[in-house]
Amino acid sequence: MPEMDNSINIFALGGLGEVGKNTYCFESARSLILVDAGVRFPEANLPGVDYVIPDYSYLRDNRVKVKALFITHGHEDHIGGIPFLLRMIDVPVIYAPRLAAALIRHKLEDHRIKDKIEIKEVEDGDVIHIGADFTVTYFRVTHSIPDSFGLCIDTPQGRIIETGDFKIDLTPVGPNFDLATLARFGSEGVDLLMADSTNAEIEGYTPSETAVRSGLKEVFEKAPGRIIVSTFSSNINRIQQVVQEAVENKRKICILGRSMENVVSIAREYGIIKIPDQSIVEDADIKHYRPNEICILCTGSQGEEMAALSRIARGEHKHVRIMPLDTVVFSSNPIPGNGALVDRLVNSIVKQGADVKQNGLAFSLHSSGHPSKQELRLMLRLASPRYFMPVHGEYRMLKLHGEIGEEVGIPHDHIFICANGDILQLKNHKITRGGHIPEEDVYIDGNDIEGLSGQVMRDREEMKSDGIVSIILTLNRSNKIIASPIVYTRGFAAGVDTHVVRHAQIHAREALDKCLARRASPEDIKAALKLEVERYIFRKTSRNPVVIPLLMMEGNH
Amino acid sequence: MPEMDNSINIFALGGLGEVGKNTYCFESARSLILVDAGVRFPEANLPGVDYVIPDYSYLRDNRVKVKALFITHGHEDHIGGIPFLLRMIDVPVIYAPRLAAALIRHKLEDHRIKDKIEIKEVEDGDVIHIGADFTVTYFRVTHSIPDSFGLCIDTPQGRIIETGDFKIDLTPVGPNFDLATLARFGSEGVDLLMADSTNAEIEGYTPSETAVRSGLKEVFEKAPGRIIVSTFSSNINRIQQVVQEAVENKRKICILGRSMENVVSIAREYGIIKIPDQSIVEDADIKHYRPNEICILCTGSQGEEMAALSRIARGEHKHVRIMPLDTVVFSSNPIPGNGALVDRLVNSIVKQGADVKQNGLAFSLHSSGHPSKQELRLMLRLASPRYFMPVHGEYRMLKLHGEIGEEVGIPHDHIFICANGDILQLKNHKITRGGHIPEEDVYIDGNDIEGLSGQVMRDREEMKSDGIVSIILTLNRSNKIIASPIVYTRGFAAGVDTHVVRHAQIHAREALDKCLARRASPEDIKAALKLEVERYIFRKTSRNPVVIPLLMMEGNH
Repeated sequence: MPEMDNSINIFALGGLGEVGKNTYCFESARSLILVDAGVRFPEANLPGVDYVIPDYSYLRDNRVKVKALFITHGHEDHIGGIPFLLRMIDVPVIYAPRLAAALIRHKLEDHRIKDKIEIKEVEDGDVIHIGADFTVTYFRVTHSIPDSFGLCIDTPQGRIIETGDFKIDLTPVGPNFDLATLARFGSEGVDLLMADSTNAEIEGYTPSETAVRSGLKEVFEKAPGRIIVSTFSSNINRIQQVVQEAVENKRKICILGRSMENVVSIAREYGIIKIPDQSIVEDADIKHYRPNEICILCTGSQGEEMAALSRIARGEHKHVRIMPLDTVVFSSNPIPGNGALVDRLVNSIVKQGADVKQNGLAFSLHSSGHPSKQELRLMLRLASPRYFMPVHGEYRMLKLHGEIGEEVGIPHDHIFICANGDILQLKNHKITRGGHIPEEDVYIDGNDIEGLSGQVMRDREEMKSDGIVSIILTLNRSNKIIASPIVYTRGFAAGVDTHVVRHAQIHAREALDKCLARRASPEDIKAALKLEVERYIFRKTSRNPVVIPLLMMEGNH
Repeated sequence: MPEMDNSINIFALGGLGEVGKNTYCFESARSLILVDAGVRFPEANLPGVDYVIPDYSYLRDNRVKVKALFITHGHEDHIGGIPFLLRMIDVPVIYAPRLAAALIRHKLEDHRIKDKIEIKEVEDGDVIHIGADFTVTYFRVTHSIPDSFGLCIDTPQGRIIETGDFKIDLTPVGPNFDLATLARFGSEGVDLLMADSTNAEIEGYTPSETAVRSGLKEVFEKAPGRIIVSTFSSNINRIQQVVQEAVENKRKICILGRSMENVVSIAREYGIIKIPDQSIVEDADIKHYRPNEICILCTGSQGEEMAALSRIARGEHKHVRIMPLDTVVFSSNPIPGNGALVDRLVNSIVKQGADVKQNGLAFSLHSSGHPSKQELRLMLRLASPRYFMPVHGEYRMLKLHGEIGEEVGIPHDHIFICANGDILQLKNHKITRGGHIPEEDVYIDGNDIEGLSGQVMRDREEMKSDGIVSIILTLNRSNKIIASPIVYTRGFAAGVDTHVVRHAQIHAREALDKCLARRASPEDIKAALKLEVERYIFRKTSRNPVVIPLLMMEGNH
């Protein structure tokens, strides 16, 4: 066997140069394992796009090698891509921590994908062998969702640690970070560390989750009327802390917002969160209690217009409106880009006479789930890797994280700042750069769960003004049409009547038939459809939306 | 053998309820080992006292059991008591890290104690067996002097970790903290953690020693004339950083102040600090260089009146005076109590036209060597002890450190806030409180290195107004007088002529003779001398100084 065949290829399909759609691949001659399969939530300039997922073409092209998907934790940017991935290829088995496994099952039911995929629950210390090439050990970390783990991936060529998302919370709500095991891996020898870069711009230490408790306590002690707390629906530890305060202060708890109701119900079922039955109240029954006997826990801390808090603030919720003595707590920080939305929501609530409490320096109502610089240094010291690849972050975060690596003594040429698709090759405990896997953003319209609405938008400015047009069609393996092209538009010039859309579909179908007649390749088909639809739309509307053809191949799962 | 005999007694003769004179004892039925033997620098209200040491009576009474002294690092509050300890008892062997060993040898030469004591140098990972009862493993920590270690003490009854002084500096100057070994001890099981409490009042993380570099860099880039840097003489890493800046900025280095000259010369000899020969200049030769070619490194950062910087500021130094374009850097923080002294010194320097740079929030010129709360939490997590005894700190620091222990989940009744002399008993991995060893402060007048000038001052206010009178005498083992009583006074009413002192000596001698005639015990002798001299002085001067008899027994070393 030639030497090259022994090396382990390491690359990301998502997670580098972005916060989201984490999808890391580890490939030997015989096998490929995936770590996480996430979505990214689109920037505000992607109208009509609900999720962004990676281009899974490389996985489709190498589908026989794909042996397993390992999930580190249950956040959407680590599991949200699973339904789309499973449409593309058969993954023999998914390993996931208990809470993540439950959330994945729920998600697959939503997507009506259930059969054939085996989900195995893992616990701290579990070791999974994938042939002779990969041995994966789960070690517990602390993060803003319970049941979060890092992975130690042993291969014949060397050892890799992929941290998953983490903070080093020394006084966590829930189990401790397994620092001793991490230190043991480090002292045994780690070749490559891949670590979370999200907060690499922040000096010092991310405050502990328990530090939020005193801020909550103060709110609960002083609030004259109802308390409405909005936070991330997956932040079970936060929700647990709010629940404890509510119970201690003899307030009933009402949970509002679909995603929070889901996650809390799953977490209760698994014993990950404890809420006494008698403390829970339905929204319709709130009126039977005095205001100072009520605590509402809801989604919408990012100002999302369709989330519970915004609906309450707009007076659109059936049972709950803002009342003058309410205290509304944002147990969250606005994610960059959401500031304006949050401000608008806060203003509307304040106008209605309620008191709003936001996280601040003096008054801690939120703590990030990601490690600041001091924790990154500690991770690097404990893992003590020979090579370092910052992951999970925008380019500037990866770069700063790389500098932290240098600070703690990793040689500059042992630090790899990579883009999605860049290949690192691990061979005999040495790492070199390999080639590049083609990768692109794929845009998903979640309202139409069956449809993948886009691919590659190189010109976002253009899209912003003229919207997106996506063409979706499905062929079987013999290139027969299973579903004729359907055209969706998002953000496309208002007032366009369905006539244009319908005729665009007809033009697309004609172009497709011509392609099939000349046995065109899938790439040719997509190019031809794109050209035909672009031309037609420009002719009819003088507009130039981004046109994205998407070809689904039947029978891939 | 009765069960009690198997237990390990753990107690401090110094270091609890005070920052200084660290002296920790670990005692089995057969053996006693000591960890550190430090001095405390006296508070401003102890006129004439240069050091405070523990009362070594318990060790003297159990001298046959004392098998070894283990030194964690070379700071005075950990090694300063050695000459006094060795006057009292034979310690068969001292184990010390290289730099500490060199400093101890130098100190013993100063004290003219050299023979008979074996000093063995230890390195990271060294394991020392003391019979079957104690196995001591050195593990490297980071601190403000190089070659600092923590100890893992294994006994048949359980494992103890004594951290020594430490911070968890993730980007240290010099070798790294051996976190992996600490984590391994923790995962194997630690029964008792004894950890440094000095900075237990400070939230967050103590900045890295390397963080000081940028502050120094700014000073060196902007200083128009000479740069005079004062810092702690033992802070070799700081001195190394100043030296590097000086060399990079083409300045010659002149080292002033006896203790700094000593430590630097020893550290250079051992290769712990690197200063190119051609970068060093004698004080007499400074005048041959332009001001911007000179960097003076000196003692006196605490405003000590006899240290180099104060002498320079007062114009008393032979070759160096403050000049208008000088930049004087205090690479230190004033130790509580020294603030006024430092302020006075700064004012005097500024008056002479020099620029003074002190450590501040915006401008980092100093970093503590002790761990803040976040590091204490991390230490507790890594060591993961069943029981916890905060050491090395004032009572309030021990208490706060205890609360941190509770924060990370150690049960309240497994946390022991002890005073010097309090005994903890370790038996079969369980710890209970034992009795109490008598212990008292012993006051030393360092100007008279052979004389121990004091013991127990219960009434400091009294002493402050009327001073201290100490009576020193030496007997041999047959209670024959080797040195007749000598009376020293410190802070005793000014203007008292030597007549009173001389006559106090005569009275003391008479009292001593009477005691010896009736074969009085040493305790009786001390009581009789104290009473006699107190009475005489009060009669003659109407003053009531604290009178401290000190009985030296000849032939103890």
